[in-house]
Amino acid sequence: MTHEQIDSAVSGLDGADVAAFEAAYQAAQKSLAEGGIPIGAAIARGGEVFASGHNERVQNADPIAHGEMSALRAAGRQKTYRDTTLYTTLAPCAMCTGTIIQFKIPRVVVGEARTFDGELDLLRSRGVEVVVVDDQRCVDMMAAFQDKHPELWAEDIAE
Amino acid sequence: MTHEQIDSAVSGLDGADVAAFEAAYQAAQKSLAEGGIPIGAAIARGGEVFASGHNERVQNADPIAHGEMSALRAAGRQKTYRDTTLYTTLAPCAMCTGTIIQFKIPRVVVGEARTFDGELDLLRSRGVEVVVVDDQRCVDMMAAFQDKHPELWAEDIAE
Repeated sequence: MTHEQIDSAVSGLDGADVAAFEAAYQAAQKSLAEGGIPIGAAIARGGEVFASGHNERVQNADPIAHGEMSALRAAGRQKTYRDTTLYTTLAPCAMCTGTIIQFKIPRVVVGEARTFDGELDLLRSRGVEVVVVDDQRCVDMMAAFQDKHPELWAEDIAE
Repeated sequence: MTHEQIDSAVSGLDGADVAAFEAAYQAAQKSLAEGGIPIGAAIARGGEVFASGHNERVQNADPIAHGEMSALRAAGRQKTYRDTTLYTTLAPCAMCTGTIIQFKIPRVVVGEARTFDGELDLLRSRGVEVVVVDDQRCVDMMAAFQDKHPELWAEDIAE
């Protein structure tokens, strides 16, 4: 771990959570480096990340490929998601929220909900545990992107 | 039109709706012929279908590729969906419902909601107009599939 990663003592996340969240953050950074929208996600079971992904709107002209969706696609067919945690750098939108509900993912760790508030209330109303890390790196990453590419950001959230 | 298609006089759909719904039904039939889950969707603007798709769980091991999602992926990047109607053979699940809400699709035509009731109340609560056709072909298609492949159906709805 570097000093830039989440401090587990501050966030309340355990070491496996911190490592899994870092995979989501690195996926977002990869997307940014590719010229894409910097939102990433990872899915873990038993503390082990088994899939990750990032927004692919720019890279593959795929409007449904938000970070969470790409990670779930990368995971392929699973018998159950009830024993998984989904990590995402940004609060899930209605699409990703509906997907978490549909897939019965019980726990979601969210990097930040300041630059986009998503559908956290809907998630919680359906019994999903939501942990908001409020990671400053994620806030800075999204704020810079939204400032630099307002039209792309508007397109991604259908505004 | 053949006698098997929806009767627009009975359903209240206009001719363009009937044709677009037929594209969704044909996509479901294509998936069935491929050994896949028989759920299809189409998206139209100004009465013209511009994309369609079907469930791809079996064909591409893609758990997020429900019919509605595949149609939206096929449509690629769109500036807006506010002038579109989504047609689907089966009531949208929470994933597809969240996606319809997120993409601000104002109107959804649903083949049937008898074999799976989906999230029609959530759609309506967010202002989406929902028309349920109750097409007997769609009911028979899904009932036969659910009876023949209960494990695959359970997997697709994460039961």
